[in-house]
Amino acid sequence: MVETIQWTPDGVVMIDQTRLPREEVYVTCTDYEQVAHAIKAMIIRGAPAIGVAAAMGVALGVEKAGPDGLDASFDQICKTLAATRPTAVNLFWAIDRMRRVYEEMKGSPIGEIRARLTSEARRIYLEDIAINQAIGRHGAGLVPDGKTVLTHCNAGALATAGYGTALGVIRAAVSAGKKIDVFADETRPFLQGARLTAWELQQDGIPTTLITDNMAGHFLRSGRIGCVVVGADRIAANGDVANKIGTYSVAVLAKENDVPFYVAAPISTLDLTLATGDAIPIEQRSASEVTEVYGVRLAPEGIAVQNPAFDVTPNRYVTGIITERGVARAPYTESLKALAADRGSNVR
Amino acid sequence: MVETIQWTPDGVVMIDQTRLPREEVYVTCTDYEQVAHAIKAMIIRGAPAIGVAAAMGVALGVEKAGPDGLDASFDQICKTLAATRPTAVNLFWAIDRMRRVYEEMKGSPIGEIRARLTSEARRIYLEDIAINQAIGRHGAGLVPDGKTVLTHCNAGALATAGYGTALGVIRAAVSAGKKIDVFADETRPFLQGARLTAWELQQDGIPTTLITDNMAGHFLRSGRIGCVVVGADRIAANGDVANKIGTYSVAVLAKENDVPFYVAAPISTLDLTLATGDAIPIEQRSASEVTEVYGVRLAPEGIAVQNPAFDVTPNRYVTGIITERGVARAPYTESLKALAADRGSNVR
Repeated sequence: MVETIQWTPDGVVMIDQTRLPREEVYVTCTDYEQVAHAIKAMIIRGAPAIGVAAAMGVALGVEKAGPDGLDASFDQICKTLAATRPTAVNLFWAIDRMRRVYEEMKGSPIGEIRARLTSEARRIYLEDIAINQAIGRHGAGLVPDGKTVLTHCNAGALATAGYGTALGVIRAAVSAGKKIDVFADETRPFLQGARLTAWELQQDGIPTTLITDNMAGHFLRSGRIGCVVVGADRIAANGDVANKIGTYSVAVLAKENDVPFYVAAPISTLDLTLATGDAIPIEQRSASEVTEVYGVRLAPEGIAVQNPAFDVTPNRYVTGIITERGVARAPYTESLKALAADRGSNVR
Repeated sequence: MVETIQWTPDGVVMIDQTRLPREEVYVTCTDYEQVAHAIKAMIIRGAPAIGVAAAMGVALGVEKAGPDGLDASFDQICKTLAATRPTAVNLFWAIDRMRRVYEEMKGSPIGEIRARLTSEARRIYLEDIAINQAIGRHGAGLVPDGKTVLTHCNAGALATAGYGTALGVIRAAVSAGKKIDVFADETRPFLQGARLTAWELQQDGIPTTLITDNMAGHFLRSGRIGCVVVGADRIAANGDVANKIGTYSVAVLAKENDVPFYVAAPISTLDLTLATGDAIPIEQRSASEVTEVYGVRLAPEGIAVQNPAFDVTPNRYVTGIITERGVARAPYTESLKALAADRGSNVR
């Protein structure tokens, strides 16, 4: 299994997801600015993986910071990392968690603060893998046997510390002996499906067919798709889901064809401070992601482009939200609140 | 305005649509096999343009054929051209029309047969432009003023002898003084939207924004899209529409968001021999169209691919079918039959 991100003595090491599957190249970030750049440039992407990267970025930043003016340095580190991408809430969740640890350690020798922050970042990493495995256990039973699972973008090992959320559900269903195959939307413009999901599932030997995004409706209508499983970047209190652009379209087409549509995400993806998905900030990315592929120009020079990186799927299209604590169903305002409050079930 | 296809003394000249917008290169076909290859390789594409190309291919084939065994040569020419692409019915319509002329001319000197076939091919070309202008006249009033028109693929001048079907409606609305702009789906895998529609509309000075296919739903939900207009490759008797892959998804998303969804197509696109769209043959094209863009590999080697070039939109999603004889509305079995039978309104 590929290592998405690792804490090493040399720094934070990530596989460069902009270059997969053509090259397996690793990037070593030796300061927090490099981690911030890696998140912004999508060298690492996927809401849970971004959270892990931000936590490691904070630990790395404090490791490199001097003891003088540490509070100011800490604020600067957090601010820089928080400014990388606006939509995935796991980023802010991880930074907040690191900040709480920092506040607790205030007044301690800097060596102890550094050790505690590093240990917290590694804990977030390890927890994420366990969380994904728990998501897989809760989701595996929902996957219809003998059918095709459709997924959008990459919510796999590469989007997390390992195992994956949506792909974790698929992996768990396969481990449970279900005979399924996967249709992967290529997911323009960044091609996470073609480049990352296809590559990841191919390495696991899970039969996978690549389609363009605009084919998903055709195959949902054909009857071969048993369910859709996707990840999430932020889930509002009412169950509205922000996820990779195109998710909303897949959800509508699934509902129109009576195909269950599941969202697989850790509890850290919930943002119960937002009543609905309308308040979720949607990142706009560069036009060149749409007009060029690997530097090859596809469209005429000077054409206007829109490039929202995410969309919001209203809760009425969501059959269930699979978390490490169980599956939330409508009405989500109640079920998500209950899951978020449930500290009893330890996933480790 | 670009010339999509022309009958010249040197042969049938086409702009190479596989190379737009990076290069404006013209291909001259000097025998019917070259015309067949150009259709198959999508050097020329778009249902009406394919019809014109096939008619010119027949005329070119007979021009080059000897007088001995002309019937057999004629059959071979028609068979080769008919075998190029299965979905667009305009191809078969044009070949049938040329065959009727040939049957009428039987026994005439070969020079007269050639002249008559060439003249018929040129008539089909000229009629197509007039038909598109009539489609534009009938459709312009349906386009809401002050809003955005969404289109998929390229149903423009490049998909026809000139002016376009869906883009003809847009051009006519602009000519009528409506303040509209266009969102063009890039239309993977062949990128007709990014490469052709964006280029064509840019040349006309019609404000156009390029989006990836999976963004269409997001913008349909946003309220800015006033209507969708697309072309068609074949329309069954009940109004089910085969068109470029992804059209079905756009139609469902339009209906879900109460946005009118119009199909603009000539009467020659109707196939009243098919009761429903289920009987329309859907072309499967090469995997490399999905896994590569301009020869640049996007996906891992060995990945399975599906590449249906078209999908079928059930009639319940279609607000109206704009033809050169007027706009058909549900129930389509009656309205299309009436339009097809109406020989009274001459579009020329």
